[in-house]
This record gives sequence, C-alpha cells and structure tokens, in this order.
Amino acid sequence: MFEFHLKKNEGPGGPRLGEMRTRRGLVHTPAFMPVGTYATVKTLTPEELRDLGAQIILCNVYHLHLRPGVEAIAALGGLNRFMHWDGPILTDSGGYQIFSLAPFRTTTEEGVTFRSHLDGSLNFLTPEAVVGLQEALGVDIMVVLDECPGYPAPEAEVHRAAELTLKWARQSLAARNRETALLAVVQGGMLPELRREQAQAMSELGFDGYCLGGLSVGEDKELTWAMVDVTAPLLPAAKPRYLMGLGTPEDLVEGVARGMDLFDCVLPTRNARNGMAFTTFGRVVIKNAAYTQDPGPLDQSCGCYTCRHFSRAYLRHLFAAREILAYRLLTLHNLYYYFNLMAGMREAVAQGRFASFRQEFYQNRLQGGNARG
Amino acid sequence: MFEFHLKKNEGPGGPRLGEMRTRRGLVHTPAFMPVGTYATVKTLTPEELRDLGAQIILCNVYHLHLRPGVEAIAALGGLNRFMHWDGPILTDSGGYQIFSLAPFRTTTEEGVTFRSHLDGSLNFLTPEAVVGLQEALGVDIMVVLDECPGYPAPEAEVHRAAELTLKWARQSLAARNRETALLAVVQGGMLPELRREQAQAMSELGFDGYCLGGLSVGEDKELTWAMVDVTAPLLPAAKPRYLMGLGTPEDLVEGVARGMDLFDCVLPTRNARNGMAFTTFGRVVIKNAAYTQDPGPLDQSCGCYTCRHFSRAYLRHLFAAREILAYRLLTLHNLYYYFNLMAGMREAVAQGRFASFRQEFYQNRLQGGNARG
Repeated sequence: MFEFHLKKNEGPGGPRLGEMRTRRGLVHTPAFMPVGTYATVKTLTPEELRDLGAQIILCNVYHLHLRPGVEAIAALGGLNRFMHWDGPILTDSGGYQIFSLAPFRTTTEEGVTFRSHLDGSLNFLTPEAVVGLQEALGVDIMVVLDECPGYPAPEAEVHRAAELTLKWARQSLAARNRETALLAVVQGGMLPELRREQAQAMSELGFDGYCLGGLSVGEDKELTWAMVDVTAPLLPAAKPRYLMGLGTPEDLVEGVARGMDLFDCVLPTRNARNGMAFTTFGRVVIKNAAYTQDPGPLDQSCGCYTCRHFSRAYLRHLFAAREILAYRLLTLHNLYYYFNLMAGMREAVAQGRFASFRQEFYQNRLQGGNARG
Repeated sequence: MFEFHLKKNEGPGGPRLGEMRTRRGLVHTPAFMPVGTYATVKTLTPEELRDLGAQIILCNVYHLHLRPGVEAIAALGGLNRFMHWDGPILTDSGGYQIFSLAPFRTTTEEGVTFRSHLDGSLNFLTPEAVVGLQEALGVDIMVVLDECPGYPAPEAEVHRAAELTLKWARQSLAARNRETALLAVVQGGMLPELRREQAQAMSELGFDGYCLGGLSVGEDKELTWAMVDVTAPLLPAAKPRYLMGLGTPEDLVEGVARGMDLFDCVLPTRNARNGMAFTTFGRVVIKNAAYTQDPGPLDQSCGCYTCRHFSRAYLRHLFAAREILAYRLLTLHNLYYYFNLMAGMREAVAQGRFASFRQEFYQNRLQGGNARG
C-alpha cells in the first residue's frame, strides 16, 4: 500500500503540499527524513524521533548490507522491528555510497563490484539484488540502484551513467514484488538536456516516485538549482519528488520552493556531534569560548527540550568534556529545528504565503549575523 | 535542612532502613548514587535518571573545580540549575581523585598541592577551601577533604594520613555555614585499631553522616569487609553511613548486609559504555559473537526500556558500529538494574527477610553461570 495525494500545487516547479500514505503511517510533505545509517538515527531513541516530529526515516542499504547484513536483520523480523521504529522507512539503494565510500568499484552492464570500506571484502550487486535486499528488510519505500557520475566528469561518462541508470531502473521495476513502493533516480550530471531526457524516460516507466540524484557532488549551488529547475516540471505532478542528500536549512527552503517533497541529509545530526547548532538566527558553534558564561539557550525562539532546560554555558562545558549528553542535546535541537522548519513551510504553502515565509527565513539569518557580529 | 530517620535497624552492623530528608527531596536508604563526574551522569538526561529511580546523584568537586570551575557554575545559579537536576546532590571532596588521578601531589598540614590531570596546572586546596567550593556549588551534602593512603602503605604513613584527615575534619566543621550537610570520612587503611579510633573520634565531632573511605584501593575483598565490620558498629546509629566507591552488585548486597546506607560507583555507567550489562543471572558482554542473532533481551526478567524494546542482536550491532545509542541503552539498563536491586533490598529489610534476599541473589547468579556455560 502506497499512495500520494497532492493537496496543493503552486504551478509546475512551484511549492507543493502532499500526503504520502504507507502501510506504517502518513507522511505530510514536504518532509525531512533523518538519516539512520546503521539502523539508528545517531544518539536518539525511536520515541525521541517521534516526539521531535519525525514522520519517516531513511536507512542505507549499503551500510546495512555490510553490517550487520540484510539476512541477519530479516531473520530478526525486518528492519522496523530490529530498530524498534514503527513508522515508515525509506532505504536508498547504495548507489551513492558505493560512489562516495567504496575504496574500489567497477561497473558493468550487469551490476557493480566494490570493496567494503569496512573490511575491504569484495561485493557484487545487481539492480535486482538491490531490490531484493530492500524487500528483505521489509521497508516501505525503496530506491533503484543507480550509477552516480562524479563532478566534473567527461560528458561521455555522464551519458553512459545515465543510460545505465535507466536500463537498471527498468530491470528494478520488473524485479520488484509490487508490495513496496519503488522510486527511480534521475541522473544526468550537469547536462540540462540529458536531465530532461532522463526525467521524461523515467516518468514514462511509471514509478511510485522520483529522486533527483547526482547533485551536490561538488558543483556550485546555482548549477544544482538549475538542474532541479529543468527536471522538476517534467516529472508527473501526482508522484512524490525526493531531492537526495541536500540538506542545509537553505537547501530545504530552496528545494520546497522548486516543488520538492522529500529531503534527507546527515547535516543536522552530524553537525550536532561536531558542536554546531542550527538556529533561527544562523549557526551557533557551541565550542566557542564566547559561550563559557552564557546563561541563554541555543536559540531564544526555540521550544525544544535542550533550549527549555540547558544554557549555552552548560552545553559548551559538556562539549569540552566530550560528554555524550552534548551530542544528544544538540542532535535533539537540530532535528527539532529541521522538523519545525518543514512544518512551517507546509503551513505557509497551505496558506498560500510561501514567498513571504522564504523572505522572512532569510531576513532572520541576516539579523542573526548582525546580532552576533 | 537535613535529617536522617532510621526506620529499621537489624542490630549494630546489620541491615538498616532509613529516610534522608534534604531541601531537594527525600532519599530512601539504602540508596545507590549514580556518578555525575562532570555535572552529567554519562549519556543520560536528568528526566531519564528520575524515571529510572535515581533519588540523589554524586558529583565530583575535583573534576568540576578543574572544569568548568566552581565559580563559573556558581555564577550560573549553582550546580543543580547548571545541570538541570532538581533532586539532592552529594559532592565528594576530591581527596580520592587527587590521590588517584593527579600526576603530582604533595600534602602538608595546611592542605594539598596537586597538578591537574587535564592540563598540568598547579592547584592548592585546604579543607576550608573544599567546604567553600561545595557550598558555592549549592549542593545538599558535602564531604570533608581527606587524605587517602595507598595500599599497601607503611603503617606510619597510614597513621599520618588518618590523623591529618581527623584534623582537617575539625577544621571543615568549623568552616562550614551549617546550611549544608557535612559528612566526615573515616580512614585508617587496613589497620583495624586505627579504623576504630578514627570512627570513635569522628563520631564525637558530630557530623551529619559518616563515609568509609580508603577502601577498595587494591586490597582483597575480605580485608575490605573486615574494615567495614570493625568500623560500622562504632558509628552513631542515627546518622547515615556512606561506603565510598564500592559498587559491584555483590558489593551493594554485602554493604547493605553490614549496615551501609549510601553507595556510589562508576561501574554501572562505565561498564555500560564498555559493553557490559549487569543482569539477574550475571554479566552479559554484549560484544560477544554469540549474540549476533540473539532475538532475546539483555535480561529476560528485566522491565527496563532497553529490555522491553531491543534484542541482544541489535545491541551487539550498535556496539560493533560504535553507535552512541548503544552506550545509552546499556547505561539505562545497568542503572535500572542497580536501582531495582536497591529497591529490592529496601523491601527485604522492611519485611525482615534480607537474609533470604541475599541468598536468592547469589543463587540466581549461579544459575546464570550454568545456563551460559
């Protein structure tokens, strides 16, 4: 069971409001999916995720395949039971992780051979096998195996990767059991014409949704958004669109402005563990000596658990002492900020005032910059 | 405000039941105090501590003095507010930390000079200064600065340390402001006669309670309990007795059997972060390969959050991936086990069946050993 209802659509390539129905619950879009690489959104319990406002989480087939192994998880009742999360899970196919993490990889028409970044062991995956792994995990939404070209890359290489991704997408569709939603990945590097062709060809295949892949791989932001702009209007309006891996707060706002429905990124969780908090007024690097005696919260306007109970001075102290509670408290805050930002955007789209929301978002940051300066 | 009510006492040197009243709430004794070295019980929030059953926590003056500094905490409203814990806090004086952690130390009649284990900076503390630091933190229960001899140590050295501790205890009493409870530390190494003398002399000074210090410093367990046995009957029955730093589950049972009221130890929290869980049936080292596919909880008979929701296989996976959630979940479990053990002992003492409780405790462990073997 998988359905997507588009509740509001401000023209092709404009902000959208939707509802994604899965076996494990509803997802109001646009939505941010926190990343649970190894079957845990780092530092948090599933109950905390729910309380923060997580509707759906993302896990990585690449990582779980290498450790502890998909078979092991399946034998223990599937990924949801394994990690005690009863909401929807989307898994990505591993295409991007093989591209970015594997110390060795070689691709043929049949599939991709790569070495594990953990132990160097040799692995071979076909598009069909990747669908099988995701089905075995028992997740709600799968993504097809794709080939992600680097940047910059020779045009011929970008074309070859896109064609292979399209071929594999057809094979993935044929291989799946139809009980789980399957999303295609639109590649095409930074070549607008190729992106358009890919978007059209993928759309004709009739997937449950469409990912924009191969972006934020080193190119300028303007180029990223140009690629989104040429792709989005060609995708079927009635299907969800997932902008893979982009996730600064600015990226989320710009992605929603361009009609994207789903987002994921390690930024709120990873930066939390590095001592960086996202706030309404910009970023706070809690390790700075300036906060040693600061009795105020991370963000005056924030209602999260961390901001309600702990001072910047205490958080800075925890970081200096490398206390695990520091990583928890900043992760809680950052995800609260992200989910709050998404909820704010959904409300703004619903009320037809997204443009002013976007303007205010940037104005707050400018003020924060002055206040801190 | 500080009162101790002895509700039940099975003879001198036998199990006791009591109630310690502080400004920040009631403590039912015998009680275990989790250790919050740097103003955080590692990995947990104060709310989680409460839910687990923590009645009082211990913090270390030595550590907080070096980082972030007592003045800084006082300026931010005191230790309770700093760390968002509204229950009672006991601070130890730092005597043991100076003895065990400082790379250099030298003691005179006036006080102790030591180098910080963090940055090598030189520090000097007098008994009066240590009382002042604890008062500045605003805690409920303070401990006097003591001198902890090593083991084995020359008899003359043990005598010198005990006499200095007694002298400093008098000075500490004179220095304190009487709003905060103050506990003496009974030293005396492994010399029964000296322990007796110290216990009597300290008792005559009229402290709010008495700590047994300088134990578990390398001596055999039999010797530890022999020292407890000679000391306990000489302490005033109407005051709480705190057995410092001893904290295996067996230690807690043996300590309660000998009339101890308060305990602290890093074991449940530290061992959790090293992958060791305390259970009714003995210890579980979660990293063992034997648990790779184990769908059962850490402890079949445990009702903690971790045991209700997560398998040994999942916990082992989290440990292998060095996920912070692993440290949290095992810490939750271990402290739940400790608080549960203490509650069980309080109930057993109340019902006059502590002897059978103790017997059952050891029988469960033997069965666990067989079951695992």
